Amino acid sequence: MKDQFYQYIQELQDTITSKLETIDGKATFQQDLWERPEGGGGRTRVIENGNVFEKGGVNISAVHGALPEAMQNYFKVKDCDFFACGLSLVIHPKNPMVPTVHANWRYFEMYDKEGNIVTQWFGGGQDLTPYYLFEEDAKHFHQVCKTACDKHDPAFYETYKNRCDEYFYNGHRGEGRGVGGLFFDYCKETKSMSMQQWYDFVTEVGNSFLDAYTPIVERRKELNYTKEQRDWQEIRRGRYVEFNLVHDKGTLFGLKTNGRIESILMSLPPHVQWRYDHHPEEGSEEEKLIKVLQNPVAWV
Amino acid sequence: MKDQFYQYIQELQDTITSKLETIDGKATFQQDLWERPEGGGGRTRVIENGNVFEKGGVNISAVHGALPEAMQNYFKVKDCDFFACGLSLVIHPKNPMVPTVHANWRYFEMYDKEGNIVTQWFGGGQDLTPYYLFEEDAKHFHQVCKTACDKHDPAFYETYKNRCDEYFYNGHRGEGRGVGGLFFDYCKETKSMSMQQWYDFVTEVGNSFLDAYTPIVERRKELNYTKEQRDWQEIRRGRYVEFNLVHDKGTLFGLKTNGRIESILMSLPPHVQWRYDHHPEEGSEEEKLIKVLQNPVAWV
Repeated sequence: MKDQFYQYIQELQDTITSKLETIDGKATFQQDLWERPEGGGGRTRVIENGNVFEKGGVNISAVHGALPEAMQNYFKVKDCDFFACGLSLVIHPKNPMVPTVHANWRYFEMYDKEGNIVTQWFGGGQDLTPYYLFEEDAKHFHQVCKTACDKHDPAFYETYKNRCDEYFYNGHRGEGRGVGGLFFDYCKETKSMSMQQWYDFVTEVGNSFLDAYTPIVERRKELNYTKEQRDWQEIRRGRYVEFNLVHDKGTLFGLKTNGRIESILMSLPPHVQWRYDHHPEEGSEEEKLIKVLQNPVAWV
Repeated sequence: MKDQFYQYIQELQDTITSKLETIDGKATFQQDLWERPEGGGGRTRVIENGNVFEKGGVNISAVHGALPEAMQNYFKVKDCDFFACGLSLVIHPKNPMVPTVHANWRYFEMYDKEGNIVTQWFGGGQDLTPYYLFEEDAKHFHQVCKTACDKHDPAFYETYKNRCDEYFYNGHRGEGRGVGGLFFDYCKETKSMSMQQWYDFVTEVGNSFLDAYTPIVERRKELNYTKEQRDWQEIRRGRYVEFNLVHDKGTLFGLKTNGRIESILMSLPPHVQWRYDHHPEEGSEEEKLIKVLQNPVAWV
């Protein structure tokens, strides 16, 4: 399973970076291969200062070895080995009318001392963070997510949509990071789902990513915007930073387990602002966004 | 003691904001009074878009009531009441040649069910975060810190200077947040130090703040700088954000204990950048700074 999934994310990385480069038309992804001293490594691909994409990363990694202490504590297990691989992406477009997107698909195995798999699971999801809310875009993104889910279980979309709203939540601000999408974790073998069926589901979602996101980019990338709208985007990007550095388990794990810092923090936006006690004007488009972030919407 | 110290920080807030306004010559501090639903409140003063100061806050608060759960767990105590007051400031100048400064002086009391003080302590410190390193400035700042410390105990400066270097450290980057200063906490009554003597020490440090910082501002605020130097400042401000959101106990406590978010996060810089895998040129002024941050210097 691990070889099958790692093969998949390698190909998916190629597919995604190549499509995003075509859309951008100017910048290309720069690749960094890196090794983890304790075992494994990754292939980081970062795009910066493009026509469309101001900063983005589409990274894969496959790491293994002794389970780091922070993760032993988290999983409440002792001395065991692990393997983890995944694709992680965050794209920050330049135009505030184009939403930021994040996606991640990952697979995890833990072994006993004889090297037998004691537990294995998939996790991942994809979610959208607009700066200006086009309801049509949020609906499209969620519809693609739902269509992918429905092929595998009619309950998946609602369950994983709600988990996404719960997870990507800035509790200290009382608002969601964005308009959500899917979030699933610990997808383990059950009576109704074999690991191969989970693989089929996770790769279905992975394959849906470009369909979910790129039509939105194409629709919005040429829209005009003002300096004030750009400021608003940068202020909202501050909330993105707050979520990733204060709440995101993946980021904090990475920082505590000696992950490759630059690959983890490629998720942070290029230009960000914090203003004291900033509130959008009543009745404005900016306020409309906030209200939706405070009260998640059933988009489909 | 609590009334004496709260009186002190109220006056110190006035002294500091009035001096900084004079230096700025354009912007003034805007004041927000706020109340904490569970007891107490604060007086937040924020300056933005000045001639000299791009963003800064000089805040006082005095809060009391039942000790929040997150703090019960941290202090390993159950159901007790507390009182805490302090002054907290962060100043982000516009000119990258002028360092950012942070300072905090605080006092804490915990009570048993009869309302008797079971423990009380002072904490605080002040530290400097330059974007371009003028050794003369770091030496001056540390000399003022040392002079204040030496009046109270010849061992204080070295002890609290080292703690500052340890505390304001971005472990995931392998570098200090800045060139340090002083950091002290849990300053409790001992054979050699009464609470009144701690009060005298903490207020000595508080009184030294303007002498430590403002001569540096005056020396550097008119220096010319390039767009590249401003970019460097914004990139380094990203490290400031990383420290405050990932490592700073005060910030994280505030976010978890329903503190006033805007007063806590006023510490975040106004304009910030993150670039992928950014490294300064070999032999540059920017690289010189990084090397000092990786290996704390004995400035005096």
